Amino acid sequence: MYIPTFQDMLDAHERIKPHIRRTPIRTSAYLNELTGAQLFFKCENFQEPGAFKVRGASNAVFGLDDDQAKNGVATHSSGNHASCLSYAASLRGIPCNVVMPRTAPQAKKDTVRRYGGKITECEPSTSSREETFAKIQSETGGDFVHPYNDPRVIAGQGTCARELMEQTDGLDIVVAPIGGGGMVSGTCLTLSNQAPETQIIAAEPEQADDAYRSFKAGHIIADDAPKTIADGLLVPLKDLTWHFVSNHVTDILTASEEEIIDAMKLGWKHLRIVMEASSSVPLATILKNKDRFAGKRVGIIITGGNVDLDLLPWLQ
Amino acid sequence: MYIPTFQDMLDAHERIKPHIRRTPIRTSAYLNELTGAQLFFKCENFQEPGAFKVRGASNAVFGLDDDQAKNGVATHSSGNHASCLSYAASLRGIPCNVVMPRTAPQAKKDTVRRYGGKITECEPSTSSREETFAKIQSETGGDFVHPYNDPRVIAGQGTCARELMEQTDGLDIVVAPIGGGGMVSGTCLTLSNQAPETQIIAAEPEQADDAYRSFKAGHIIADDAPKTIADGLLVPLKDLTWHFVSNHVTDILTASEEEIIDAMKLGWKHLRIVMEASSSVPLATILKNKDRFAGKRVGIIITGGNVDLDLLPWLQ
Repeated sequence: MYIPTFQDMLDAHERIKPHIRRTPIRTSAYLNELTGAQLFFKCENFQEPGAFKVRGASNAVFGLDDDQAKNGVATHSSGNHASCLSYAASLRGIPCNVVMPRTAPQAKKDTVRRYGGKITECEPSTSSREETFAKIQSETGGDFVHPYNDPRVIAGQGTCARELMEQTDGLDIVVAPIGGGGMVSGTCLTLSNQAPETQIIAAEPEQADDAYRSFKAGHIIADDAPKTIADGLLVPLKDLTWHFVSNHVTDILTASEEEIIDAMKLGWKHLRIVMEASSSVPLATILKNKDRFAGKRVGIIITGGNVDLDLLPWLQ
Repeated sequence: MYIPTFQDMLDAHERIKPHIRRTPIRTSAYLNELTGAQLFFKCENFQEPGAFKVRGASNAVFGLDDDQAKNGVATHSSGNHASCLSYAASLRGIPCNVVMPRTAPQAKKDTVRRYGGKITECEPSTSSREETFAKIQSETGGDFVHPYNDPRVIAGQGTCARELMEQTDGLDIVVAPIGGGGMVSGTCLTLSNQAPETQIIAAEPEQADDAYRSFKAGHIIADDAPKTIADGLLVPLKDLTWHFVSNHVTDILTASEEEIIDAMKLGWKHLRIVMEASSSVPLATILKNKDRFAGKRVGIIITGGNVDLDLLPWLQ
């Protein structure tokens, strides 16, 4: 298992800069007042394909040598990694095959296809996903870019925390949602090296709290097919992300479905950005644990904004 | 009638800088491809009270001498000017009285009250609004800050185009929605002085096309109580805004209700920002008149983002 280094993250940033956006920070006097904290929202939903995952995907795609690149890339993903890898592959002009649960939101499937990615559907469980993928990968010979358990991907995701720190002049706490742990691992990689005093808090849905239980137990616990509105956070930790989570995360906080939906609507209303349910888990946990964040400078990573606008959760 | 000058706009910018945000520019490769133009969206929906009108309102409020300020400010407004004036007044700690149509969206009323503004409701017509306002103003003695027909307000709105030009390195065309014409007049004030080669196009709902008909006729035509989903654009031109519109606007383009709603949803989906129907009229007119914009660098002012999230127009 190769553990990506701080230098890998710096190299990734140089490699991907031409292909990603340096996304802006949003602030809201209203949300600061509501939480008692000073909140800095890093808008990764403003990446062209609508999610931070374009960072890790671009680092993998543009790091391939020409021979490897011929067969393209392949992956399995609950959504945003698939569209972001398709997008990065389209920028380089190479094929991208993705295995995706048939239950993934239509908006996410559309995005993958718009970027030229080829989708093979599987059942919405980790086991079905991995089985289907093995078949696709052997057929195409594409380079496997795991959505999170890949040092290239983690180094890429770490560039987000680097920008966030530059844009805010330092933070007491960074909160990011946790599914497989790619963004959280990248954040750990960057902050443990350049700002070890900054706390890293992972935010997870109660209904998919495998990372929380893993963190408390001291070993990986994986659930098959959890169900939550935060559909980007369904997947379990793997060895590489567990390394970062177990060594560098300060705490994992959870929120209920209702709390996530309330936070989502609050973000749309006061930040005036379209953010996914998955991206709303950090704000939900901050609202639930105000004492912990009061008076602190808190960075929050808005991980994505690919939402089916015909199926808003507060209107269902 | 005092016509604000370029220097008034520069002075306004210095005066209001501590109180407003220098809002970011959003771009979308997808929307560029769809329109054939290079689009730069200036996100005034990211101002703290959610609309560009905080610029003109702050310029008026912070330009008052201490004696004038004691009685506060007063205005009538279909929504965003009211909340922005209340916000600016709250920053200075002075009273704000607003007359607002009873049919204004609940979200806008809530925002006014949150900032300490006192609302008096009127019927949704220009005549009722002006009558109710005269009563309120004589009772309170507040300084009347008209939503658009005020040189201080127009000078303030002009600061938006100034930032837009700085942030984009110049543009061929700037498109802004037109209601009473405050933003368009401010844009004319700034661009006619510093970038006279840049075209200024005003975008208006077909169902409230009084500015379009005025522009073609060569004199102000005012409708009483037009109806459109773009509820920020219901009011007619007045002498001061007519001065700017008639002298400096290149053209006025219109869009249907359906085209406005489609553009609104498209903006939410691909820019991942919450923008009002009123703010979506420019994109609707660009999509409808692609030949006119193809190959051009086009600035679009996203004027506001105060939306009732329980009443989205594409779900009604």
